[in-house]
Amino acid sequence: MKFYDFYMSNAAYRVRIALNLKGIEAEQIIVDLVADEHQADWFEALNPQRMLPILEDSDITIAQSLPIIEYLEEAYPAPTLLPSDTAGRAWTRSFAQSIVSDMHPLMGRRVRRYLANQIGASAEDIDGWYNNWISTGLRGLEGMLKARDDSAPFCHGETPTVADLCLVPQAYNAQRFGCDMSLYPTVMSIVTTCNALPAFADALPENQPDWKPMEGVIPGPTKASR
Amino acid sequence: MKFYDFYMSNAAYRVRIALNLKGIEAEQIIVDLVADEHQADWFEALNPQRMLPILEDSDITIAQSLPIIEYLEEAYPAPTLLPSDTAGRAWTRSFAQSIVSDMHPLMGRRVRRYLANQIGASAEDIDGWYNNWISTGLRGLEGMLKARDDSAPFCHGETPTVADLCLVPQAYNAQRFGCDMSLYPTVMSIVTTCNALPAFADALPENQPDWKPMEGVIPGPTKASR
Repeated sequence: MKFYDFYMSNAAYRVRIALNLKGIEAEQIIVDLVADEHQADWFEALNPQRMLPILEDSDITIAQSLPIIEYLEEAYPAPTLLPSDTAGRAWTRSFAQSIVSDMHPLMGRRVRRYLANQIGASAEDIDGWYNNWISTGLRGLEGMLKARDDSAPFCHGETPTVADLCLVPQAYNAQRFGCDMSLYPTVMSIVTTCNALPAFADALPENQPDWKPMEGVIPGPTKASR
Repeated sequence: MKFYDFYMSNAAYRVRIALNLKGIEAEQIIVDLVADEHQADWFEALNPQRMLPILEDSDITIAQSLPIIEYLEEAYPAPTLLPSDTAGRAWTRSFAQSIVSDMHPLMGRRVRRYLANQIGASAEDIDGWYNNWISTGLRGLEGMLKARDDSAPFCHGETPTVADLCLVPQAYNAQRFGCDMSLYPTVMSIVTTCNALPAFADALPENQPDWKPMEGVIPGPTKASR
């Protein structure tokens, strides 16, 4: 199995956690988004959308984090990353999707770059843009979590699901950009629980082989300190 | 079953097609996004993300179009909207997700409104923004479709899947905003095939009870003319 990855990709980070939780060893192929390696012809042939992450498993090539995770669930079902009941699966998929489609796409590097270069947005404008979408999204996530059984250590139940796989990278991103996370105590309680697990900690950007210091990166547990 | 809908919501349009294909009669509850009805307290209690669509089925409430469609697949499996093989399911989910997370979120009303009101983007800037993301996305979709078996009438195989359910509303949106669709012949061939089916035509915005003329709407088949 090959996994096309970049330490800075929030979507790839979700899949790294999934692979770790399932104990799957994949060959990690680094695609440097900062160096625009995803714009190369060989990469477009692999994925016409020219985005990370991508998983190759025998003759199957899959782009997009959630479809990769659904595939891993089907092909490598244990341990499962979806609840066993229909209602639970619907809730976790909905929670995950709200991050993947209503938060993350508005905050990525390509979007910030377009705002700056094509629309002439100032640094202050881009901060305001980021803060608007992250706080709108986090408020919604906190609301969804408060409405569920609050004794659950994870987003849904006693074990991590696809909801946690999406929440933890998004919270990491919010902290990196200096968001006040004290407004979202349920989110942060779950993030802390998750990051105590090696599968989550090993997937942190700073624990990747291609990691470089990013401005505003928050410190996290390193492999050496665990 | 209750379905919270608005004729102008591209995400709700996907689910309308799914309900029609599966022959499910749901009570349609209109939430007027232009009148900001999704910002009301009663709606936030239903969905803390304050977005459409939402499906209620007995005691299950689900937000987000793709999780709703996955739920319908589980609870009402016939006719299926996913291929029967793992590779096919991965491809269709990936195709659908690339629309749902990399195209649609950047084009919605809340985003265009923020660009205009908070960043001071001109009408020309917003047109450029829209055209950039729609053409980037459509080029990727056309590339994905060209790489598959080109004898398939739909995105994947002989029957509509979740890929078509996402493609048709996104193409409708692109046409509404005057995008040159002749650049994407495979996309348009599939869209034409889909829209000849009553399940797709009945889901068109202009065939909804709450429809009002939108500036730049393209004409489509009406119930009366079929």
